[in-house]
This record gives sequence, structure tokens and C-alpha cells, in this order.
Amino acid sequence: MGSGRAGAPRGERAAVERLRRRLPGPPPGEVWIGDDAAVLSRPEGRLIVTTDLTVAGVHGDLRHIGLDDFGWRALARAVSDVAAMGGRPVGAVVAVAAPPDTDLDALYDGIAAAAVAHRCPVVGGDLSTATQLVVAVTVDGDLGDGPAVLRSGARPGDALVVSGPLGGAAAGLRALSTGGRHGVSQEGIVHAHLRPRARLAEGEAARRAGASAMIDVSDGLVADLGHISEASGVGFHLREVPVSPGATLEEALGGGEDYELVIATTHGAGLTEAFARAGLRPPLPIGTCSADRTERTLGGEPVATQGWEHPWR
Amino acid sequence: MGSGRAGAPRGERAAVERLRRRLPGPPPGEVWIGDDAAVLSRPEGRLIVTTDLTVAGVHGDLRHIGLDDFGWRALARAVSDVAAMGGRPVGAVVAVAAPPDTDLDALYDGIAAAAVAHRCPVVGGDLSTATQLVVAVTVDGDLGDGPAVLRSGARPGDALVVSGPLGGAAAGLRALSTGGRHGVSQEGIVHAHLRPRARLAEGEAARRAGASAMIDVSDGLVADLGHISEASGVGFHLREVPVSPGATLEEALGGGEDYELVIATTHGAGLTEAFARAGLRPPLPIGTCSADRTERTLGGEPVATQGWEHPWR
Repeated sequence: MGSGRAGAPRGERAAVERLRRRLPGPPPGEVWIGDDAAVLSRPEGRLIVTTDLTVAGVHGDLRHIGLDDFGWRALARAVSDVAAMGGRPVGAVVAVAAPPDTDLDALYDGIAAAAVAHRCPVVGGDLSTATQLVVAVTVDGDLGDGPAVLRSGARPGDALVVSGPLGGAAAGLRALSTGGRHGVSQEGIVHAHLRPRARLAEGEAARRAGASAMIDVSDGLVADLGHISEASGVGFHLREVPVSPGATLEEALGGGEDYELVIATTHGAGLTEAFARAGLRPPLPIGTCSADRTERTLGGEPVATQGWEHPWR
Repeated sequence: MGSGRAGAPRGERAAVERLRRRLPGPPPGEVWIGDDAAVLSRPEGRLIVTTDLTVAGVHGDLRHIGLDDFGWRALARAVSDVAAMGGRPVGAVVAVAAPPDTDLDALYDGIAAAAVAHRCPVVGGDLSTATQLVVAVTVDGDLGDGPAVLRSGARPGDALVVSGPLGGAAAGLRALSTGGRHGVSQEGIVHAHLRPRARLAEGEAARRAGASAMIDVSDGLVADLGHISEASGVGFHLREVPVSPGATLEEALGGGEDYELVIATTHGAGLTEAFARAGLRPPLPIGTCSADRTERTLGGEPVATQGWEHPWR
């Protein structure tokens, strides 16, 4: 309902209209925000769909990060799941449940910036009041000419690589929550926490190079490798783990939210070549898949695979 | 984390696995729940995408309805937006943020029943703890061989029809919240509130018959006609409004959540024939679009178009 204050209608429709104007509009022949549903061009190849919740106090602490960063992360997390299939985003719909005094403009600034950075237009959404900020982002993607890279295709002997060093996001959260963010040396890790990037180019290069399995590091390297292990029926032994500057080995193994990709491949050389052709940093070897599906080791020592889980009844 | 109670692992992954088993699985060549994203066959024609929030205390009162009904309504509301474009659902992803003691099985029972009833498989989702139950359902749909029916295509002189009588859902909510639901005569309206059906067959028949504009009745007939008016630049005068048994005219005009379709058409006879060919109840005429975009009348008297809105700053 309108508040009566001049120049600033306060209703839901006014908010939606204001948010729509912050976001790019559709190309000819497509319909985005403003009708019952969005209408998009036919995707190439098969359709990928993923949805991700970002909840204040669970996936992001608003005492330490801004609403714009919260919005960026909500979109980037969902896009990262498309990257982990080897796909490209076609469009996102964003559902926001939030307390009535939430600064939606700040939230959507971050969402819009992430949408531009990931070439993933926001084509629709929904808005509701709630007692806690909850952002649900659903991304549709396509696969071009190839099949998706699943979690289940890894085979014993496959090399395991990651698309970049790990632990930066966890270290950035540590710096923020202990009042850090002063030193120049911490800027990188804080940025990794606030503004993660989904590894779309890396995921697509891995798919084209015939990667056997892939996942993004959201729960933590060891936990996410555990998902590949369970789905593929393989174990893994790690030889080395690349640690982000400023992060600890523990943060690299268990911290999560780095959104780098973990890739299993039978053709390690082909993957490295594909990354080079795409102008990407070389993939970093971390270990090998083994036939013993219970094996989960680093340097020969067992590592715990238990990531954080929501406490469900 | 596990609670240690025998036979009932309590972690998030156990919950997801239990929920996965409640839902039908994918056909060969598709991937649904369990990987980073779902992979679906190429949709026919253009892609439709819509997302809808259902928040406890805002869109459904858990003092009056069960979690299974809440789940049904969450899915049906989103599917209804696909119906209002003239499309067919391809698949849904369901993101649930809920207090840890929420009976997810009951919630997913209702979601699964609605998925079967609407032929809209649940192909993925996400799960998080939160202080309040929030369900975000995103539905992908396709359009077969035709263009979508938008809100913006109505022209002066077009006939306005609805796919069925209105006000039942609002009357059902009234019966539930005043302790009703005793009389047999109230069963229909209570069911309309608890288990609404998206009018997919009606929407597709209307699209094939060349309907000029369409919307589903979610906010209330007059408010939703207001959306068509604004998008199309037309007014409307209503001559009669079909009222559900047990409902009042006020509930039929402003109650919302009936999910019947409001259709504008230049070819009223063609629409009636298309409905008959599809074995559907005849569409019910309610009025006409007019060239005066400010006209919003019933029986010559002005009607208020203000529907309920979330209070945004």
C-alpha cells in the first residue's frame, strides 16, 4: 500500500516496477518481468534447471556483509550449479521473501551486478514479506552440443583437478567476522567471500574436454569430493591441495563456498589443453580416484568428509 | 547431523534422500534430483519460466490448513502461471526454507500430489533451515506450436470470459477461519481453498483458439483484470460475475486464489468451441473490454481495483 509520502509509492507493484527498471530488458521476441511467466527463446540442447536458497543468518551474515553482496552471492551460488554441469545460464528467476523494511534496491543492485558478470539475465521473480530474508534463485541453462557432466561418471584412475586454489571464501569470512578487512593482503579473500564467481568458462571447457565428473566446491572440498565418490562409486586419494593466499589448509579442505570446480578426468592432458585454449588458468592437480570407494585420504592420512548440514528432524 | 536415534538419520542429506524417494523418478536420458542441477529433454517451442513464493502466515495460515495442503497450494500457484500463458509444465524445482521441526514429509506429500495432478514432475530443489516456512516453486513450461498469451494483447471490443465461477477459495478460507467446515455444503469451497487446480487444459485451449490476453485469478478478479487493463491499455465493463456456491459477490470480485483464468478474446464463439472440443466446461462471459482505459465497472457502477499488496518500504 502507498505510504502517502510524495514521490515514493510504497506498494508491491511499485517495488516490482522499480526493481524491473534496475535490470536489463529482454531482446525482441522474449518476455521477461511483468507477465505471469517469462518467455525465452528455445534453449540449445537439453535444459538444465537448478534452484538455490540463500537465507540470512544461514548462508550469509548481514552483520558482516552488505545486502548487495548478499544478493550477488545468491545469484552466483545458483549459477555455479550450472557451471558444475558444464552448461551456460539462459536466465534466472529470483524470489525474495524479506522483512518489509529491507532495502530491496541494495539487494537487487548486487543481484543485477552478478547477473551482468555471469551473463545470466534476471527474467522474472516474486516478492513477499517474511520475518527473515530468504532469496531463492532458480537458473535455467543449456548445454550447447554436449551431454551434462554429472557427479556419477568418475572412474578409478581418473585424475582429480580443481579450477583454482581453495579456502579463500572461508578465510574471508573469518577476516570479516573478527573485524579484519584492514590489511591489503586480506582484500582478496574478503572479495572471495563477498563476490564469488561461478566458473562457467572452466565448466564448459571441462565438458568439451570430456571430463568424467564435476562438482562445484560449495560445502567444502572434502565434502564435495564425497558427493562424487558416492555417486560414482569411487574413493579418492589427494596428494596436495592448493590453498588460497591468507587461508589455512583446514579452510581449503572444509571451508566451502569457493565455487571453484572439482573435475575428474581420464584425459588430464586434454583438459589442460582445453583450459589453455580457452585462455584459462591451468587446472591444478590434487589427486586420483581409486577403486576402493571407502578411501578418502590426503597424503596417505584419512580425511573427514562430513560437511555442515542443516539440522532436520 | 545424525541424532543418534536408530533407523532415522536426521541430516539434510538423509532428508533429501527420503524426499527423493517420495517423488517419481526421471525417464531415461534425464537427470532430476541428486546432481548439481536437473537435466531435461529439450522443451517444445519456447521456454516459459515462472517462480512463486508461498510463505506461512502470508499465503497460507498453518492454524487452518495442513502442511500437505500448504505444499499442494505452493506448487499449484506456480503451475497456474504457466496455464495463464497457455503453456504446459515441463518440470518444477522446489526450494523449502523451514524451521528444523517442520514435518517435511507432510509438506512433500502435498507437493507430490499436486505434481501428479498437474503432470508437473518435481525435478530438483533445495532445503534450508529458517525461522518461518517459505516455499519457492519455479516451474519451467513449454508452448508447443504457438506463441504465449500475454496480458498485453486485449483490444477494445474483446469479450471477457472466465473459466469457472469465482470466490470459492475466499469463502473456503472464511469457513476454515471461523471454525466452519462442518456442513457438507462447505466441502466444495474448503476444497477450493486447500487444493486449488491450475487450469492447464483451459489455458491451452484458449491459446489454440487465439485468445488475445489471459491471466489467472490470484489477486482477485478485479485486481487481475486491472493488470490486463494496464498492460493492454483498455478498460472493462462487467455485466455479470459467476459466484461459486457458498461465496459472496464480494468474494468473487476480490477474493483471489481461485486460479480460474480470465480470458480476453475477439472470437468468443471460437473459444467456446475450443473448450467444447477439449471436453471442458463452457467459458462464462463476464463483460467486454472498452477503449476508455480508465473504465472499470460492474453493471454500470465503478469497482475498486486495489488488490492486497505486501507493504514494502
